[in-house]
Amino acid sequence: MTTNGPEATCLTSKDYYFDSYAHFGIHEEMLKDQVRTTSYRDAIYRNKHLFEGKVVLDVGCGTGILSMFAAKSGAKHVYGVDMSNIIHQARKIVSDNGLADKITLLQGKMEEIQLPVDKVDIIISEWMGYFLLYESMLDTVLVARDKYLIDGGMIFPDKATMYIGAIEDADYKDEKINYWDNVYGFNYSSIKKIALKEPLVDTVNGTVIVSDACPFKEIDVLTAKKEDLSFKVPFQITAQRNDYVHAFICWFDIGFTQGDTPIYFSTGAHAMYTHWKQTVFYTPTTLTIVEGETIQGTIACAPNDQNPRDLNIVIEYSFHGKYGSEQHTCDYKMS
Amino acid sequence: MTTNGPEATCLTSKDYYFDSYAHFGIHEEMLKDQVRTTSYRDAIYRNKHLFEGKVVLDVGCGTGILSMFAAKSGAKHVYGVDMSNIIHQARKIVSDNGLADKITLLQGKMEEIQLPVDKVDIIISEWMGYFLLYESMLDTVLVARDKYLIDGGMIFPDKATMYIGAIEDADYKDEKINYWDNVYGFNYSSIKKIALKEPLVDTVNGTVIVSDACPFKEIDVLTAKKEDLSFKVPFQITAQRNDYVHAFICWFDIGFTQGDTPIYFSTGAHAMYTHWKQTVFYTPTTLTIVEGETIQGTIACAPNDQNPRDLNIVIEYSFHGKYGSEQHTCDYKMS
Repeated sequence: MTTNGPEATCLTSKDYYFDSYAHFGIHEEMLKDQVRTTSYRDAIYRNKHLFEGKVVLDVGCGTGILSMFAAKSGAKHVYGVDMSNIIHQARKIVSDNGLADKITLLQGKMEEIQLPVDKVDIIISEWMGYFLLYESMLDTVLVARDKYLIDGGMIFPDKATMYIGAIEDADYKDEKINYWDNVYGFNYSSIKKIALKEPLVDTVNGTVIVSDACPFKEIDVLTAKKEDLSFKVPFQITAQRNDYVHAFICWFDIGFTQGDTPIYFSTGAHAMYTHWKQTVFYTPTTLTIVEGETIQGTIACAPNDQNPRDLNIVIEYSFHGKYGSEQHTCDYKMS
Repeated sequence: MTTNGPEATCLTSKDYYFDSYAHFGIHEEMLKDQVRTTSYRDAIYRNKHLFEGKVVLDVGCGTGILSMFAAKSGAKHVYGVDMSNIIHQARKIVSDNGLADKITLLQGKMEEIQLPVDKVDIIISEWMGYFLLYESMLDTVLVARDKYLIDGGMIFPDKATMYIGAIEDADYKDEKINYWDNVYGFNYSSIKKIALKEPLVDTVNGTVIVSDACPFKEIDVLTAKKEDLSFKVPFQITAQRNDYVHAFICWFDIGFTQGDTPIYFSTGAHAMYTHWKQTVFYTPTTLTIVEGETIQGTIACAPNDQNPRDLNIVIEYSFHGKYGSEQHTCDYKMS
């Protein structure tokens, strides 16, 4: 695995609830994520005929970039909603771009505010979090959909698919996990135990991927229910070469499939960098795997009972290969 | 300027008040900062005769590494104080290393807790923040000193010196400041205004430094008062070559000078990487400077009235050179 500097992504930085979103740094990172922003731009600009004269809702509008894409595509009116104070900047930006008559920005929780219209034709939203679902706004998008979207209305994007694979990652596992065995001569194994339970959000080099990719969860934003965001599903991955396995890796693909020109992007290690990077789950032991051998298991994901912003993820897996058999249940927590 | 990946350091991650310090990630970054941690280690281990049989107070003990250094150096007893929940991990670590009888860890604010002893012989603390003073714990160290340190007691470290210089930084200024002129075709100049007021914490390549270094503030931790942490002081820097100036850069050096073997480290661009990096203040215009020409001014620093955790920094400067004369007053805020 390669990292961007000495530290992997700090999960606590993406934190709506303390309004760190009001700071422009996180928006800078998202805007400069070219895969993300140009995918939205293309999905909207290449489907101008769909936006022409329509009422659009932007859930979690941030600095207003998606709202402005929609307005420039001929939307009759765009309503942008965000609970963060960044919305004050967004209003200024919308006004500076001469779009104040086309875009209305409302501060508040989607679940609590009342739009000035009963229904909207299209919902646009960049709701995705790390591991797709960590601190994601998908549940808010579903609320907005059920309350405001007309029958037959459209959602951009409308498809998300989560994947799992296996990686060889000895060096970085030494740096992130085994480091705690000896910290300037001291035993920090109590931190090691915590580190093993914490998925690591970081950029992974595509060359360390040992297995094929198993899609384990597909979300159709048009029909998904809140309950669908807690799940336990099977997976099976097959080694593509002889190697060691130190971790599972997860990523997701996003699709805007309702336009005449569908647009997709991937956050996988094989694709261009996105600020979502990939999510790595270190395994308690190292597997020695032979090309064609499989790892089978289940992956479960649900909000933490005590703190629904945290995500509990359980990966159960079994492996019966030439060089050994193993079976583990691993609890992880994103917090 | 070179950056570690797409984003400079996110200031909000170093945030005691929401207890993100309880997450081990920030401690991992600090422990893995070898310049920082080995400087403390050396300052303590190479002065074992000073620690032998002494009572030591560790202000902001984190995972307990400095407390353990002191205990290993023969301290009679070490008291570690931290308000973060990381102290629960620190207790486990101290116990795992067989030092539970030598180290007592107390959770709470230094200003509010009561130590089980009246006085201590030595205070150790890693209190430094970005730009030395942003979210620093120095004021807490001063409180601890006045309440607990015996007359003639020692503080590790005891010296801090802040420096200012000038850098050529056209490319990165384009990326961080001028970027906002055109964001996917939209005018984000309202964010640009904010970006210019926000010092950037990032690693700066030593080769972009155009001027000499001016020490503008020296802090003696043994004698400093809280009032000394708000100041307005003059500076003067001299160009070492013909070049452009796009920004001021600040950094600090730290000294452990009370032992028989003084130890120093620097967080400057010329020195090894530390997690404090450097702090960059972009200027509103670009200066064209000739070797030997000077920039004169003042730098003022004080906690924000409304939010004392924020730092207001004002740099006033004037320049009269071959290619122009300029005078500016620039307000910055670290928040």
